[in-house]
Amino acid sequence: MLIVADENIPLLDAFFEGFGEIRRYPGRSLDAASVKDADVLLVRSVTKVDRQLLEGSKVRFVGTCTIGTDHLDLDYFAHAGIHWSSAPGCNARGVVDYVLGSLLTLAELDGVALSQRTYGVVGAGEVGGRLVRVLRGLGWKVLVCDPLRQATEGGDFVSLATLLEQSDVISLHTPLQRGGEHPTWHLLGQPQLAQLRSGAWLINASRGAVVDNAALRELLLDRQDVHAVLDVWEGEPQVDLELADLCTLATPHIAGYSLDGRQRGTAQIYQALCHFLGEAQKVRLADLLPPSPLAHIEIDGSADPDWALATLCRAVYDPRRDDADLRRSLSDDAAKQRAGFDQLRKQYPARREIEGLAVRVRGEAPQLVQLVHALGAVLS
Amino acid sequence: MLIVADENIPLLDAFFEGFGEIRRYPGRSLDAASVKDADVLLVRSVTKVDRQLLEGSKVRFVGTCTIGTDHLDLDYFAHAGIHWSSAPGCNARGVVDYVLGSLLTLAELDGVALSQRTYGVVGAGEVGGRLVRVLRGLGWKVLVCDPLRQATEGGDFVSLATLLEQSDVISLHTPLQRGGEHPTWHLLGQPQLAQLRSGAWLINASRGAVVDNAALRELLLDRQDVHAVLDVWEGEPQVDLELADLCTLATPHIAGYSLDGRQRGTAQIYQALCHFLGEAQKVRLADLLPPSPLAHIEIDGSADPDWALATLCRAVYDPRRDDADLRRSLSDDAAKQRAGFDQLRKQYPARREIEGLAVRVRGEAPQLVQLVHALGAVLS
Ligand SMILES: NC(=O)c1ccc[n+]([C@@H]2O[C@H](COP(=O)([O-])OP(=O)(O)OC[C@H]3O[C@@H](n4cnc5c(N)ncnc54)[C@H](O)[C@@H]3O)[C@@H](O)[C@H]2O)c1
Ligand SMILES: NC(=O)c1ccc[n+]([C@@H]2O[C@H](COP(=O)([O-])OP(=O)(O)OC[C@H]3O[C@@H](n4cnc5c(N)ncnc54)[C@H](O)[C@@H]3O)[C@@H](O)[C@H]2O)c1
Repeated sequence: MLIVADENIPLLDAFFEGFGEIRRYPGRSLDAASVKDADVLLVRSVTKVDRQLLEGSKVRFVGTCTIGTDHLDLDYFAHAGIHWSSAPGCNARGVVDYVLGSLLTLAELDGVALSQRTYGVVGAGEVGGRLVRVLRGLGWKVLVCDPLRQATEGGDFVSLATLLEQSDVISLHTPLQRGGEHPTWHLLGQPQLAQLRSGAWLINASRGAVVDNAALRELLLDRQDVHAVLDVWEGEPQVDLELADLCTLATPHIAGYSLDGRQRGTAQIYQALCHFLGEAQKVRLADLLPPSPLAHIEIDGSADPDWALATLCRAVYDPRRDDADLRRSLSDDAAKQRAGFDQLRKQYPARREIEGLAVRVRGEAPQLVQLVHALGAVLS
Repeated sequence: MLIVADENIPLLDAFFEGFGEIRRYPGRSLDAASVKDADVLLVRSVTKVDRQLLEGSKVRFVGTCTIGTDHLDLDYFAHAGIHWSSAPGCNARGVVDYVLGSLLTLAELDGVALSQRTYGVVGAGEVGGRLVRVLRGLGWKVLVCDPLRQATEGGDFVSLATLLEQSDVISLHTPLQRGGEHPTWHLLGQPQLAQLRSGAWLINASRGAVVDNAALRELLLDRQDVHAVLDVWEGEPQVDLELADLCTLATPHIAGYSLDGRQRGTAQIYQALCHFLGEAQKVRLADLLPPSPLAHIEIDGSADPDWALATLCRAVYDPRRDDADLRRSLSDDAAKQRAGFDQLRKQYPARREIEGLAVRVRGEAPQLVQLVHALGAVLS
């Protein structure tokens, strides 16, 4: 079997060498000639995979190590009988860690207890769903707005208006949708932003244009009580410098950029390919991930839970580093600024996930044990 | 034996109950009547101990759980044959941890490697001496200015001018001396501040007036490249709000406020009293300190040393919390501002020292082992 793959897919050999020959190409230079003899094509988001690329080739399975599928012509795949798989949720946990790190920063700045706030999560899919579980696991009050899930599942959902009215913290996790029944383009526009409670925090690590960035800038100029954390920007890699300046944390679309997440993307298409071929999975991501630099952490049973939460999360990831890196790269020279933004994403340092952290609690401390469970860390 | 003591001295019973009766008073209300029958008087800095307080009493030993002795009339003690002891260096390690935490913040903001900077330590006594050992242990380049030690010991010291010329980081650790051969009042005045190298960092956790605060404010208005970290303020608890705003970190004179340090102050006068009485020491501080919330941390041998340094130090103490607390308390109402400053010191949360942190390095990693040794943490 011949596998043709984007050379930038991590762990290609480790996962796929058992299937046959692997040929690597730069993702942007993949063309009909290079793909022609392949049985399997593995790509990232930079390769457009459509009739033009695949017609006349042997390709029967396309895998993309990304959560999105905008670069795949799924209608053509269906028509041509080509199987495909993406990697939904592969980087969702990284975003959860980012949100937790942001909450810790904001709590420190405002001197408030996170357990006393009401959280509003907008969009409860791969990212938002995990976030809701973690926050509820910590015993915090969480409201969820997801009209699509509400329509199919029913249950405990609220409208955006109710969420805005009752939440101290708003965290956005929808896709960017310009049309349809539930568009998300400027979901938080001027009227919605004006409804933010006193002392509210707004976190956007979904897509930039889910928030009207110009309206947010005006709001922040006016309302010193509001904190905004932006990982994504309307028109990125172009960043509104004045808005960035007004944000409490500003980062270059790296919320989900954990090492675990990137390698998990490959693992998920490996699993899908095994399933497609009817073969047993022989390779496990857990065996391939490098050891975490933080091998183990032991907290005393007498530790304060707020201290424990902050210490465990920050030992794994603290977004203030990425905020500092972005701010240093900002420049009035727009081309330089855009290049800096992309550069920070390309050279992003290896970051691990809280789910990989091994924690022991010394002595009897059910509240701390619950906290470690809620975070998803490994209780040892 | 009767011991009369300031009720706010920590661990009084644990250390002193073996000697006889202990009578407690608020430090500010200690008077000749309460002290009259005491053999031993234990105070903090709020009690002035002089002829007026002691004449006619049985007191033969005065202990102060503080590094300073300004509140003791040592001439009278000598004249009256009263022994005394203070607790030099008891809080020195806390200040070292504060400086390390500040360096990590500044390195993150400026995106520089701490190992590439030259450090200038001014005043190498209890605090400065320990700081020099830690920084040199980490393998960093350190210049030391201490004309008094230079005069008595000779050796590897530089002048203040040389230090200012060659250091990227200046950390001040002198007493405040208005007169004498080596006055330190406005040791860094306008002319010295003007000599700061490009991109220099200035840290003052000694006494406020060692730096001319008005001159520093002017400098920071002018030089965006310079970072200042102030824990102590000319005229504190009054803080120059504009200066605080220009400082990268601003804290309310808490650099040395570790729990270990406060309890060590009591341990040191206990040791001095045992020595005075010719008795063996039966109580050990290590047995009395509460367990550290961070019981144990294990880092993988493959960990990046810069990551390890930041993670270990910050897991114990990160001054950004204290910076946030001070900034929130700042107010245009001067009386309110001063009260807030004092309040933050009084209600300071329990903070531990890096020297108490138990660290294991998994696998063979001599550089990480050296780093843990340099920090003074407990390698287990
Ligand atoms: N910043 C990063 O690094 C990063 C990383 C991963 C994902 N993302 C982004 O985060 C978002 C969520 O990703 P995901 O993987 O969880 O996607 P997902 O498709 O799994 O979940 C999206 C959820 O939003 C809901 N939704 C759709 N329209 C809505 C509306 N109008 N109001 C409320 N809810 C609505 C959907 O029903 C779904 O449950 C996406 O925009 C994705 O691009 C960003
Ligand atoms: N911020 C805090 O919480 C905190 C905590 C502890 C100490 N302190 C302060 O830190 C300073 C140092 O404390 P310490 O316990 O190390 O004192 P120390 O007396 O042990 O050391 C002071 C050193 O400064 C040197 N020195 C004196 N004049 C000098 C000059 N002109 N130039 C250079 N060096 C000079 C002395 O020779 C001595 O070695 C003091 O001002 C103390 O009040 C602050």
